[in-house]
Amino acid sequence: MQQQLFIQMALQAWHSQVKRADQLFEGLSDERLMAPVAPGRNRGIYLLGHLTAVHDDLFTLFGIEKALYPELLDPFVKKADNVNAPYPSLSDLRRYWAEVNQTLAKHIDALPDEAWFQRHTRVSEEDFAKEPHRNRLNVLLSRTAHVAYHLGQLVFLK
Amino acid sequence: MQQQLFIQMALQAWHSQVKRADQLFEGLSDERLMAPVAPGRNRGIYLLGHLTAVHDDLFTLFGIEKALYPELLDPFVKKADNVNAPYPSLSDLRRYWAEVNQTLAKHIDALPDEAWFQRHTRVSEEDFAKEPHRNRLNVLLSRTAHVAYHLGQLVFLK
Repeated sequence: MQQQLFIQMALQAWHSQVKRADQLFEGLSDERLMAPVAPGRNRGIYLLGHLTAVHDDLFTLFGIEKALYPELLDPFVKKADNVNAPYPSLSDLRRYWAEVNQTLAKHIDALPDEAWFQRHTRVSEEDFAKEPHRNRLNVLLSRTAHVAYHLGQLVFLK
Repeated sequence: MQQQLFIQMALQAWHSQVKRADQLFEGLSDERLMAPVAPGRNRGIYLLGHLTAVHDDLFTLFGIEKALYPELLDPFVKKADNVNAPYPSLSDLRRYWAEVNQTLAKHIDALPDEAWFQRHTRVSEEDFAKEPHRNRLNVLLSRTAHVAYHLGQLVFLK
């Protein structure tokens, strides 16, 4: 019972941060998203691509499906913000963001309780035996803090 | 077994964010902490006081002890940053920050598993019966995201 409750709480924390990001992106014009969050820092467009790529990567990390837009990892995670990089349009990025999070929500809301305590795909069976906290649920907790971290920056574009 | 594991995971997520904040504050000079994180935004000193006050408030919210520095709530939570406000010195604030988090860690690391699923002091028994997720552990998850949010801002002072 408490296990179920905890999974609900972790999912609720995730959905709540994603919703805050949704509302923030919706309230920001394309022009604002092309501005840096602070002088010399990442632009809104980069953070939109970054969060989309990191959330899309959860499909692979959880081992539930292929990423929808794996091509975002290179420009938005491996590489730093670059005004000369050929990024997708903001209209496309906004669509990817919504699609990735909606598809992800459908999958994770349906994941059986036990599956949350199984290892994610980037930890070996051997390491997992020694470190049982390296499971899917721990990844979700960590990614929840990750959204919050960047939300604290994106709010400066308002 | 798994109940212990997810309480450990939630505690580990909390400690990891607090440690990141610790390291950030330690690496920032008093001069940097007197600067705003971005033009027109909160200063480092305000965010140091704010995080200290919010963490100190967990003693009351968890019902485990009295807050150590309840006088910080008014200037750093109820009120906005104000260059004319008579804030404690940075040397005092740094000490409060360390003391609050260390004392809190001692208490929450020793909290029995069951206690995490009990209601916090700001939800009534009646409401808690309807919303069992309004427990201590949920507050910890929410405050973990709160530290991460402000860390995303404080990093701009580096």
